[in-house]
Amino acid sequence: MTNQSACPQNLTFDLEAYLQARKAIVEKALDQSLAMGEPAKIYEAMRYSLLAGGKRLRPILCLASCELVGGTIEMAMPTACALEMIHTMSLIHDDLPAMDNDDYRRGKLTNHKKFGEDIAILAGDGLLSYAFEYIAAYTREVDPNAVLKVIAKLGHTVGATGLVGGQVVDLASENNPDISLETLEYIHTHKTGALLEACVVSGALLGGAKEEELAGLSRYAYNIGLAFQIIDDILDITATQEELGKTAGKDVAADKATYPRLLGLEASKAKADELIEGAVAEISPYGDAGIPLQALAQFIANRKN
Amino acid sequence: MTNQSACPQNLTFDLEAYLQARKAIVEKALDQSLAMGEPAKIYEAMRYSLLAGGKRLRPILCLASCELVGGTIEMAMPTACALEMIHTMSLIHDDLPAMDNDDYRRGKLTNHKKFGEDIAILAGDGLLSYAFEYIAAYTREVDPNAVLKVIAKLGHTVGATGLVGGQVVDLASENNPDISLETLEYIHTHKTGALLEACVVSGALLGGAKEEELAGLSRYAYNIGLAFQIIDDILDITATQEELGKTAGKDVAADKATYPRLLGLEASKAKADELIEGAVAEISPYGDAGIPLQALAQFIANRKN
Repeated sequence: MTNQSACPQNLTFDLEAYLQARKAIVEKALDQSLAMGEPAKIYEAMRYSLLAGGKRLRPILCLASCELVGGTIEMAMPTACALEMIHTMSLIHDDLPAMDNDDYRRGKLTNHKKFGEDIAILAGDGLLSYAFEYIAAYTREVDPNAVLKVIAKLGHTVGATGLVGGQVVDLASENNPDISLETLEYIHTHKTGALLEACVVSGALLGGAKEEELAGLSRYAYNIGLAFQIIDDILDITATQEELGKTAGKDVAADKATYPRLLGLEASKAKADELIEGAVAEISPYGDAGIPLQALAQFIANRKN
Repeated sequence: MTNQSACPQNLTFDLEAYLQARKAIVEKALDQSLAMGEPAKIYEAMRYSLLAGGKRLRPILCLASCELVGGTIEMAMPTACALEMIHTMSLIHDDLPAMDNDDYRRGKLTNHKKFGEDIAILAGDGLLSYAFEYIAAYTREVDPNAVLKVIAKLGHTVGATGLVGGQVVDLASENNPDISLETLEYIHTHKTGALLEACVVSGALLGGAKEEELAGLSRYAYNIGLAFQIIDDILDITATQEELGKTAGKDVAADKATYPRLLGLEASKAKADELIEGAVAEISPYGDAGIPLQALAQFIANRKN
């Protein structure tokens, strides 16, 4: 057990450098994962959104979790890329006029504003199916049964039991600021938490984690996932459009239920802090090896966009 | 080698009874594969289209191909269901207003006309991701490496290299009846042929087919896939709306390139017949065991809807 504040190694762990280095290898792997092809238009549309930047938190979490339990970056990289493909697909489809009708994402035009609605729908479908193909065809040095578990986990995370289910409840709750905290948590754990949890758990599965390790890592991921979304809600109020790279104040304008609205701003911050603390504690049995995942949790708590 | 017209077993093979029996077990498996859940609306939408009937040719081909090479129905059933989920997803998304804008499918309202565009997009996404989850989580008694090959094959079949790519070129060719035969074949082999090929090849992979068997089965499937689409084009001209269960004469009204338009009706029929003959010949090395797949090819040639 490592008490983080008393551990000198923590002081020497440079999270910013770590994130920058990891982001660089993920960007390179993503670029290589999806080369241009024919018909050019659909590859351009897929690459436009997949390579649009972002923090790459999901792949970084997957790689870190795989390493934590003794695996290598190489074992997890195809899945790490696939997780970003899935995340990108969900953003493209959520932004569509029939859904959230967003014009900007990460400071750029959304996929359908750039390529048209038909191509945007197909780019999402293409990324989703390629994610599964990519894991199945390119994962090396991993027990094939573990790869199948990862694929099953990711399918569960995207479908009606995950992202899709969360988006359905989110759409049904539109213009209804009076939904319960329970419904709000359902939306967040399904729309955001489920995929973050899948990142951590799939990395651990690929790295050969034992059954009992998976439960703790899953709790870690649940906590950071919910905290991530609470902080998203907070930033929508406190950050500027420039900082966010997307329309700020949108939740208030849309009269949307959010944590700050249901709990107040201070109580929301306190809840996020509590969740992050819980996440950090789940990783403490790993000692120094857990420092990257602990630092990632704190990064989520302190992020500005 | 079996000469089909000289083989008495052929005379006793009742294709209609075979198709009816297979359709019944597939319908039951599909119904069980996707039980209702929460949020109810998305499960209703997914089940509405997945259980809307149809010939279930794709799952039946997958099961038959698995049996042909020595496998069992049980080994192939999760993949057979997944293939129908993928087919259903592609129909739901292709019918959307931003794509082909169809109001009816199989004699029923299309998914977005019944549930709204947002839910229809999500129902497609849910079916696509569940297809991969279902194969990975429920396939039994098969080498996990073969299951991974099936998943990679299906991902390739859906993405920009398959269905999605075909739909992109199809949309780009709209209102252009003067596209080349080459472009028309690209659209058909990607939109229809690729998935039919995947049905046959995945069944064979699950059943433990040898490498050299896969090539012949792939050619069989390519032929029936292209023939299937040529006959679709022919039926659009010659069949009534009642027979088709969808709008007839739509290709002509949309000024769409079709085989009858490019080759003439008689030459199109001749090309379809030639493709089916080639398909039947690919299966002849299997003798009597190949009768179901040969009869399925002939069924495609003679279908009325």
